[in-house]
Amino acid sequence: MSSMSAVKSRLIPAITTVTSIGVGVWLGVQYERKTLPLPSVLAKTSSPSDEVDTRTVPGHLVPVTPTPGPQTSPGKAGQIMRYGFPGLTDLKSREGYVVSYDRRNRNPHWVFEHLTSSHIRGDSDRQQCDFKEDETIHPYFRATNWDFKRSGYDRGHLAAAANHRHSQTAMGDTFYLSNISPQVGEGFNRDAWNKLEKYVRGLTKQFNNVYVCTGPLYLPRKEPDGKMYVKYEVIGRNHVAVPTHFFKVIACETNKGELILESYVMPNDKIDNNVPLKNFLVPVESIERASGLLLFDRIPRNAFKAINGRQP
Amino acid sequence: MSSMSAVKSRLIPAITTVTSIGVGVWLGVQYERKTLPLPSVLAKTSSPSDEVDTRTVPGHLVPVTPTPGPQTSPGKAGQIMRYGFPGLTDLKSREGYVVSYDRRNRNPHWVFEHLTSSHIRGDSDRQQCDFKEDETIHPYFRATNWDFKRSGYDRGHLAAAANHRHSQTAMGDTFYLSNISPQVGEGFNRDAWNKLEKYVRGLTKQFNNVYVCTGPLYLPRKEPDGKMYVKYEVIGRNHVAVPTHFFKVIACETNKGELILESYVMPNDKIDNNVPLKNFLVPVESIERASGLLLFDRIPRNAFKAINGRQP
Repeated sequence: MSSMSAVKSRLIPAITTVTSIGVGVWLGVQYERKTLPLPSVLAKTSSPSDEVDTRTVPGHLVPVTPTPGPQTSPGKAGQIMRYGFPGLTDLKSREGYVVSYDRRNRNPHWVFEHLTSSHIRGDSDRQQCDFKEDETIHPYFRATNWDFKRSGYDRGHLAAAANHRHSQTAMGDTFYLSNISPQVGEGFNRDAWNKLEKYVRGLTKQFNNVYVCTGPLYLPRKEPDGKMYVKYEVIGRNHVAVPTHFFKVIACETNKGELILESYVMPNDKIDNNVPLKNFLVPVESIERASGLLLFDRIPRNAFKAINGRQP
Repeated sequence: MSSMSAVKSRLIPAITTVTSIGVGVWLGVQYERKTLPLPSVLAKTSSPSDEVDTRTVPGHLVPVTPTPGPQTSPGKAGQIMRYGFPGLTDLKSREGYVVSYDRRNRNPHWVFEHLTSSHIRGDSDRQQCDFKEDETIHPYFRATNWDFKRSGYDRGHLAAAANHRHSQTAMGDTFYLSNISPQVGEGFNRDAWNKLEKYVRGLTKQFNNVYVCTGPLYLPRKEPDGKMYVKYEVIGRNHVAVPTHFFKVIACETNKGELILESYVMPNDKIDNNVPLKNFLVPVESIERASGLLLFDRIPRNAFKAINGRQP
């Protein structure tokens, strides 16, 4: 129970009432190109409507009225960044998951999976899988097996290997270090976190489709000087960040199209085996604020039959 | 001098020899869309060549041989993230600069400017400018003026207001809080950092084109337990991160097309006014590793006439 209160006290502005409805704000993606001189969005005039928050007020589904946004001349950004585009986060689409990679922290930014009962069945063998560097990540930003050596941390899967038993390739893909975060082994990766992963697989018996987004968190904590600080260890030559917490947000769909949502946060720490999973449920909005992500925002919150076990 | 050694000791694997040559790895961008069902890169089969590092070994300009990358079925990612795309970092193109916004830290990720002598001339008045929320950023991730109140930190411009005197709009745009980081006021924002900004403007007298990339850093430090930790304060209700350091990387071009590069890192701290700017020069590669960015990588390093005052 104490680990749970630690979770709650570190989550930033905890939201007690659900005050916003998600309506598909789709985000483009970042990818590497060899030939294009400029990302296309930068080559055209940006219009306010491209950049405006389309979330709506509850029950109204009317876009929030935009303040007129800034304009830019066509091609101006192309001129400004003529000699290089610094980059955002890397996006990789794999057999069984999609990952956005955080190049600064050498960790996944988020990992997305779609699971069904057939995904998790099969005789793929994790003994045939080796943790491997992701060579599609630039060497400056790539985590290596050496970084984990003698760090005291497990190489923890975010898309779990056992979620992809249907295909040896899909399982092997989960061993890319771009899908891995340093996790406390005993009491977390091998215990509480593993229990949560098993629970997610179990949901595929009840639901036709299970969508899972998993990621690290770096949560602030109040220190004796009364101020809030984010603090986390970095390991190895490449300074791979050790997240303070991890989240898992799960949308489950029945064959009638009914949806439920569950959102968990666990501290990257030894957790007492007797603490039930439901104690780690937190409002999805607090995960969104802390991670900088919007999760399952194409579904209005009140369209879920249940969120964390309650009617929204 | 002591502040400089502090900078150096926190920069991660400091590179003493320039071992890589940048060759335009162009990265696509993230933007919000209301109508598109899926980022287009996710709707197609990814090919290894899309994701491969195209930097080359010195003097060879031959792409690093890729390990065959993972394949994915067309549209698979679209199925995996059917109910929402979590997001990356926000990209905004403004009159005088381009900013990538870090939604987790509520700070710019990087800000890019192109300066000439005509950009910095004019009678635009900063008294007519007010710091303003960037309403194109989702409210969950937006810094507000309230966050800075009584924090003890200045609202420090990354694209400096005085760089954009030619246009009141361009100057006004620099007051969006998405271009602002919490900076130590006395001894930094109003002193050493200001001196660096003035120096950059001065370069427009000597050079036809000055390209500047500015951003925050969150550098690790060794603690008494012998481990490395990243630690930074967060301020206000929205937990706006206070970066430990800032970088500025500058590419200057003569009318003959000759290029020079300078790269600076300064701690977000009171800095003795007598420390000369050149003491804050650091290898650009160490900034790239620490920030997760590639800077001016379309120009092979050995194509610069000088990097930090020396022939590369």
